[in-house]
Amino acid sequence: MPTLVKALLNGDRLALSRLLSQVENDTKEGRKALEALFVHTGRAHLIGVTGAPGVGKSSLVNQLVQHLRKNSEKKIAIIAVDPTSPFSGGAVLGDRVRMRDLSGDEGVFIRSMASRGNLGGLAYGTAALTQVFDAAGFDMIFIETVGAGQAEVDIARLAHTTIVVEAPGMGDDIQAIKAGILEIADILVINKADRPGIEHTEKALRGMLELAHPISKQFLHHGRTEKLRMSNKPIISEDGWITCIQKTNSKDGSGVPELTEKIREHSIYLNKSGDRLTRDRNRLETEIDIMIQNTLNKEFRAKLPEEKFEQVLEKVIGRKLSPWEAVRQLINGRNP
Amino acid sequence: MPTLVKALLNGDRLALSRLLSQVENDTKEGRKALEALFVHTGRAHLIGVTGAPGVGKSSLVNQLVQHLRKNSEKKIAIIAVDPTSPFSGGAVLGDRVRMRDLSGDEGVFIRSMASRGNLGGLAYGTAALTQVFDAAGFDMIFIETVGAGQAEVDIARLAHTTIVVEAPGMGDDIQAIKAGILEIADILVINKADRPGIEHTEKALRGMLELAHPISKQFLHHGRTEKLRMSNKPIISEDGWITCIQKTNSKDGSGVPELTEKIREHSIYLNKSGDRLTRDRNRLETEIDIMIQNTLNKEFRAKLPEEKFEQVLEKVIGRKLSPWEAVRQLINGRNP
Repeated sequence: MPTLVKALLNGDRLALSRLLSQVENDTKEGRKALEALFVHTGRAHLIGVTGAPGVGKSSLVNQLVQHLRKNSEKKIAIIAVDPTSPFSGGAVLGDRVRMRDLSGDEGVFIRSMASRGNLGGLAYGTAALTQVFDAAGFDMIFIETVGAGQAEVDIARLAHTTIVVEAPGMGDDIQAIKAGILEIADILVINKADRPGIEHTEKALRGMLELAHPISKQFLHHGRTEKLRMSNKPIISEDGWITCIQKTNSKDGSGVPELTEKIREHSIYLNKSGDRLTRDRNRLETEIDIMIQNTLNKEFRAKLPEEKFEQVLEKVIGRKLSPWEAVRQLINGRNP
Repeated sequence: MPTLVKALLNGDRLALSRLLSQVENDTKEGRKALEALFVHTGRAHLIGVTGAPGVGKSSLVNQLVQHLRKNSEKKIAIIAVDPTSPFSGGAVLGDRVRMRDLSGDEGVFIRSMASRGNLGGLAYGTAALTQVFDAAGFDMIFIETVGAGQAEVDIARLAHTTIVVEAPGMGDDIQAIKAGILEIADILVINKADRPGIEHTEKALRGMLELAHPISKQFLHHGRTEKLRMSNKPIISEDGWITCIQKTNSKDGSGVPELTEKIREHSIYLNKSGDRLTRDRNRLETEIDIMIQNTLNKEFRAKLPEEKFEQVLEKVIGRKLSPWEAVRQLINGRNP
């Protein structure tokens, strides 16, 4: 076993920091370490936190982590990912504030990825970082992403619990963009709850949730639909966990204890219902599938003379051969 | 050759409509037709139009198409894709307005895809629809998408010319989301140019463009940077085409003739510079690559006993085996 891996498993912070860099840079050592660490993973609770820029995600995560640290012995990691903006220094800026609030706490580790690479790679890289933290014995790993694109959805797939953060004061015009991301939320946070327009935002979001998961239909025979949706308590229906809403104010920390409690309830739900195992299974199956595809493709391309591929591609570009026929010719004509 | 394909090549509108449905539903007939049509493709100019909901994309495309039809004999297709919102009826609503403006013109064909499937599938489906229109002899194909996610970027990769539409009056908070999508723009349109805040929006967008493609550096020795960026004329630098800005007002149609001219200039640039051929080549190469991967994977999984895969997966889920080792075991243990 590599020395760094051993040191990491013994709780060495410097080894952790070095391994995170190696894994992020996808070095040979990094890949070896990941493989050696894998058997030590699977214990951490992965929590994705996403939302548009300006809704106050970073402050909220800071508040959450401070609250959790005050009330438990849990070791917590934060991975801040900022894929949407090629120009912003968002991740870096947020980190400075964090350093002030959370520095000096040995039970907290913060890492930012201001990657500009491709998005598939970003989800892969984030997954790899969570594995390192997981093996290093962190109990909760917060993955913070900005935006509402495919990257966020991919990263949400990685998390056990997904928190989508909204804030009042964004135009109704962009509600439609949000609708897509609401689908991935386990907990929906309306931050900056002291701002004007909070009632309007809450109403709009409740309307969207109701469209996405019509509780009314499921609970109609109980005659308590309205109360359920309005109580803000997590609801577990016959279809599973139903997105709940939590209002917070990351300035004074109000709503943060309640949010912590909802995260805990979701974690309990995941374990009890078997959903956590299902998510883990699906994720690993997809991962293995992709690795098999890449391996088979590399093998195939290594055996295929480059000029053969070029010849066929030229015919396709010249519209003399369809891509389907091209693939048939390449695959059937391969060396055994 | 299938009858429908023959009819389509002879300009039969009903055959076109039927084939579009078959291709969209990915039927066996649809796939056969696509393959037969491929040799007739490669002529149309594909124009992607994207932007957030509410910026007035549909009206703008309507105005553009009406202007183009008045001044040329070009046959034009519009594909409206609405992937972001699972709840909105945006595409359908926009179509009604369109029907009123463009119906009765035999040289225009409108098709909407309000798909809720996965995003990769959406880009694939859109690509397939463009092939049908292309083979049917449409000269220009507008592909209209909503939002700023991975789907839009994928669809932009398909287009020869990408137009990103913005409008004044959206908060600065969401500028960072836009930044990502600016990267894919060949032409940046600021619609609703009569609205207050237009100067602010224009200034912000110019700043972002300057950050993304610093013309100042490239043209500094010419001493005409400011003039170049401000002239709104397309600039072709040593690095190729540089995103230009066009202000429009889709209410009264102002700016639409100038936008049409910019689209034409971009088309000329693509042909002259060889960029069009490069884009075509890259797209087809990626397509073939993906098809090879899928074929190899299907072959492999067909030969692999399901219980063998399950056994290995169970070991991975139990953290007894790493995914890398699992893949090695599965691939090395395969039947010849």
